[in-house]
Amino acid sequence: MQAIVLEGKGVAFQEDFTERPKGTKNEIEVQVVKAGVCETDLQLMKGYMGFQGVLGHEFVGVATLGKYEGRRVVGEINCACNQCELCRAGSRNHCPNRSVIGILNHDGAFAERVFVPEENLHVLPDSVSNDQAVFVEPLAAAFQIQKQLRLDQFENAVVIGDGRLAFLIAQVLEQNNRCVMVVGKHKEKLARFSEKGMRVACLHSLNTVKRNYDLAVDCCGSETGIPTALRFLRPRGTLVLKTTIAGDRYPNLAGIVIDEINVVGSRCGPFDLAIDALANRSVEVESLITDRFSIRDGVEALQTAALPGKGKVIIEIGES
Amino acid sequence: MQAIVLEGKGVAFQEDFTERPKGTKNEIEVQVVKAGVCETDLQLMKGYMGFQGVLGHEFVGVATLGKYEGRRVVGEINCACNQCELCRAGSRNHCPNRSVIGILNHDGAFAERVFVPEENLHVLPDSVSNDQAVFVEPLAAAFQIQKQLRLDQFENAVVIGDGRLAFLIAQVLEQNNRCVMVVGKHKEKLARFSEKGMRVACLHSLNTVKRNYDLAVDCCGSETGIPTALRFLRPRGTLVLKTTIAGDRYPNLAGIVIDEINVVGSRCGPFDLAIDALANRSVEVESLITDRFSIRDGVEALQTAALPGKGKVIIEIGES
Repeated sequence: MQAIVLEGKGVAFQEDFTERPKGTKNEIEVQVVKAGVCETDLQLMKGYMGFQGVLGHEFVGVATLGKYEGRRVVGEINCACNQCELCRAGSRNHCPNRSVIGILNHDGAFAERVFVPEENLHVLPDSVSNDQAVFVEPLAAAFQIQKQLRLDQFENAVVIGDGRLAFLIAQVLEQNNRCVMVVGKHKEKLARFSEKGMRVACLHSLNTVKRNYDLAVDCCGSETGIPTALRFLRPRGTLVLKTTIAGDRYPNLAGIVIDEINVVGSRCGPFDLAIDALANRSVEVESLITDRFSIRDGVEALQTAALPGKGKVIIEIGES
Repeated sequence: MQAIVLEGKGVAFQEDFTERPKGTKNEIEVQVVKAGVCETDLQLMKGYMGFQGVLGHEFVGVATLGKYEGRRVVGEINCACNQCELCRAGSRNHCPNRSVIGILNHDGAFAERVFVPEENLHVLPDSVSNDQAVFVEPLAAAFQIQKQLRLDQFENAVVIGDGRLAFLIAQVLEQNNRCVMVVGKHKEKLARFSEKGMRVACLHSLNTVKRNYDLAVDCCGSETGIPTALRFLRPRGTLVLKTTIAGDRYPNLAGIVIDEINVVGSRCGPFDLAIDALANRSVEVESLITDRFSIRDGVEALQTAALPGKGKVIIEIGES
């Protein structure tokens, strides 16, 4: 099949990629309709997780088998063993034996087909378009913050980052917090937020900052996110970490100790909340799409997503 | 006065050091009886906080003025403005205008006298010896964990570090948690813990680790503390950070995001709980003392504290 494959240190389009055997019996073949490029894909190309195989974990497709046969579906990316202590305790996303679609020991969705455990599939309502559906996975990650923290306990919140995930997280916070500010480095990206009526600040033109934010979310995808967040957070504030990056050069963390910050690591989230928010349009995502490529040009899609100012890059693969 | 002073990049004994003027009207002169060397002193010598002045923040002395005149006292180290929003909200330890004795804009206690705001002083009961009293400040920092977290909610706990602070933290955890393990790199330091009946593990002889700890406390004073803690913590576990160090080379923090760890920065703590624990001997500290020096040999005291296997180094200064 056609696929965008990370092998060795390079990524390439392959016309006849042979995927790995299915991981478990209950994996369903999904014919991919379209997929989105995520910052994590770019980090995987830099060596994050040491992943090798087909990239892609934000996708919408059509199930070819099982109870959802012929239906448009999205898929959760953590493929759990369902047998270990954590799975039995309901923490399937943290199963130590898991594979993760397009990230860990599991071929991803920048391909004509992807195998997904049936229990990971969610059928899309007609009111959610294929373009919207590509955002279910990252939007679920944004809603995970709401699952982990009682957001209404925070007076105000600052989002560190002006990229694709920040665009989703800021909208989730806006539903819960009276005062949300988005802090970034790129004027053209920040414009996307201010056009939605959000408060923004550009780090390059910021002088002294009053450290009075109760909540900060670092989703800037850079090791500078934590020190930037600490410039805004009050002592004993809460810092949600969404950034996962390659490399080993984090800045000094003494500020977390000195200011007794509560740090909350946050990863994958609830697909149902994300699908609902897209269906009732309480979160808007289409304006984030800046580019579309065929799978044959998937490498260019990845390169484009890494360019300054780019929003979501969509890879068009099949038809629904 | 005689003092151990950090100036430029060097530390030296000075026979006639002239201290800075008092910070506030209500600062009381305390004649120092003895003081303890802390890992933070060694980090300050490496450039942490950019501190210049008299080192030392763990001390016992005699107040020369005010309502505690002639009494044996210990002193909290954060000198707050008492006027800002945080002070008025009761977070004096986080006052943005604060000085910190021996750490930030305030001469410390490796000297014949130290100035301390009267409100920071605590009178010692007769049942607490001067040797014990030197441990009040670090023991309060250990009890801060108990102030921040309901410790009895954790099934088990692992202490990352086998040094001076670890010795105090492990004893506080043992009062609250059924199963406490101490993880370190130094056999001779770990022996101090196992002699107290605690479970210990040496990192050098550890193979695979079952990741099933609910709580980890990093107090190892090294940038390796966080990755070591993540080897023991279960997903969604809690990691208390006590380590503050100089330098800018932290390891990758993706594990905090992937495993959705809750990280709690933790600094100074309640002196009253520490004094009580020393008075009723629920925490034992004297066995940690390995060396004593006069203030004239204070530089050697600091060098000794940095040697492998050393416990608490005491600097003897005056009489009570």
